[in-house]
Amino acid sequence: MQVIVSAAEMQKLAEEARRQGKTIGLVPTMGSLHAGHLSLIALAKKSCDFIITSIFVNPTQFAPNEDFARYPRDLVKDAEACRTAGTTILFTPDQNEMYPDGYSTFVTVDGISSILEGKSRPTHFRGVTTIVAQLFLLTKPHRAFFGQKDAQQCAVVKRIGRDLHFDVEIVVAPIVREQDGLAMSSRNVYLTPQERSDSAVLHAALCRAEQLVAGGEQSAAAIVKEMRNMIQQKKSAAIDYIEIVNGDSLSVLDGLQKGMPALVLLAVRFGTTRLIDNTFLNVR
Amino acid sequence: MQVIVSAAEMQKLAEEARRQGKTIGLVPTMGSLHAGHLSLIALAKKSCDFIITSIFVNPTQFAPNEDFARYPRDLVKDAEACRTAGTTILFTPDQNEMYPDGYSTFVTVDGISSILEGKSRPTHFRGVTTIVAQLFLLTKPHRAFFGQKDAQQCAVVKRIGRDLHFDVEIVVAPIVREQDGLAMSSRNVYLTPQERSDSAVLHAALCRAEQLVAGGEQSAAAIVKEMRNMIQQKKSAAIDYIEIVNGDSLSVLDGLQKGMPALVLLAVRFGTTRLIDNTFLNVR
Repeated sequence: MQVIVSAAEMQKLAEEARRQGKTIGLVPTMGSLHAGHLSLIALAKKSCDFIITSIFVNPTQFAPNEDFARYPRDLVKDAEACRTAGTTILFTPDQNEMYPDGYSTFVTVDGISSILEGKSRPTHFRGVTTIVAQLFLLTKPHRAFFGQKDAQQCAVVKRIGRDLHFDVEIVVAPIVREQDGLAMSSRNVYLTPQERSDSAVLHAALCRAEQLVAGGEQSAAAIVKEMRNMIQQKKSAAIDYIEIVNGDSLSVLDGLQKGMPALVLLAVRFGTTRLIDNTFLNVR
Repeated sequence: MQVIVSAAEMQKLAEEARRQGKTIGLVPTMGSLHAGHLSLIALAKKSCDFIITSIFVNPTQFAPNEDFARYPRDLVKDAEACRTAGTTILFTPDQNEMYPDGYSTFVTVDGISSILEGKSRPTHFRGVTTIVAQLFLLTKPHRAFFGQKDAQQCAVVKRIGRDLHFDVEIVVAPIVREQDGLAMSSRNVYLTPQERSDSAVLHAALCRAEQLVAGGEQSAAAIVKEMRNMIQQKKSAAIDYIEIVNGDSLSVLDGLQKGMPALVLLAVRFGTTRLIDNTFLNVR
């Protein structure tokens, strides 16, 4: 595994790999790698023979009041995990490589960037789409791998891929969970033992939603109400949102219908830690 | 010469050309080709062996009150000119290929997009940078060729190229002029005979600025004042702006200095037709 810090060098190596007929798979991350990230690398290896894992804690997707400074970083441990998982190139640019002095270009997606996560984090997706565009242009991937946990991010990235004609297939991999169902997240380390215990309610509430739908419930309001009740029983939980949306457009749904892909998404704070999770709801 | 309408097909051909080791040169245009455009194709041929000329009248760079509908279009004549000039692929997508239903992604550059042209055309450069990003991703050029007449556009395109890491060399070619000095522009056809005659004053005023600087004048205000006086003598002329700026950053200069690249830029209306022009000012 090569570790590359320079953007120019990264791009040169990617171009060479393309010329040699390699199939490049990109796994973009902010580091602090967990089993979810490693599942993306494993998935990439199935269809690509040149795996680039990027680690960059991207400042533009954090608001000033968010956790950029304390976001967990452990490059040595991450590098070992990448090597073991079969990464070809670990790309770890520093901030000046991606946002040099005078940096002023942003990629924005109207509409789906300002709903759900975008409501409480208005500049978040502008940061995500800008760094993803940079990473795509530097690593020239044939396929890029994202986790379903960040469902809205996946939708936004697919949108810029389609709109700007990035020659990249966006592959979305399933959520990887802890034993009690909590979705893997680098932010889980922030949780106190009590909050960590309470946070299992998120997956339980999502499972309850699936059960309700399997039992014939088609009212979004009824499903959300029951989830809300479950989560509110945990003292450390404060719900930001629970929404049922069209899985493609992310537009809010009043009711479920057979054949329409639906997604229930939630964001809940436990103390100072904000967690997100989601699951598909399929009317059979 | 192949004429390609499909974005997907364009991208496939560009990728194949890259794999075959061709050097791709892109000349992006809005059609209605004149000697200025043809000089770009000729320049591209000097260093590239696979020339893509694009013709697309890009709606997002026109404001609702501007001339999108009446912008001159003559695809048959343009195609013949491209063929004669040595274009390999003429890419003429229709609007749905570049802005399909639900299109919502934009590339923006803060700062230099909102000065000069951007003051009276606030959404113009957002349209330019968005279509340029799309064209770069579809045609995968090694070099892209732009005309110095659109000096601010060149600066904005260089900025997105650098910031987003487009693997493209931006080449800027000199302004091509009519015999009386008027800069070639597809919009010159809008001018009445009187306006066309008056419009020669733009180049005369730029030449006067060069003379003043050669004679030792270093005050931007003094140079602009004399240019303004010359242009205002033409009854059909209405000055939008005349500014002297740093040639790299486009920030406004009060005075010229030896060794600092300076550019004098102007926008002037003749009747309903808005023309732009510029020249470098070099203190010796």
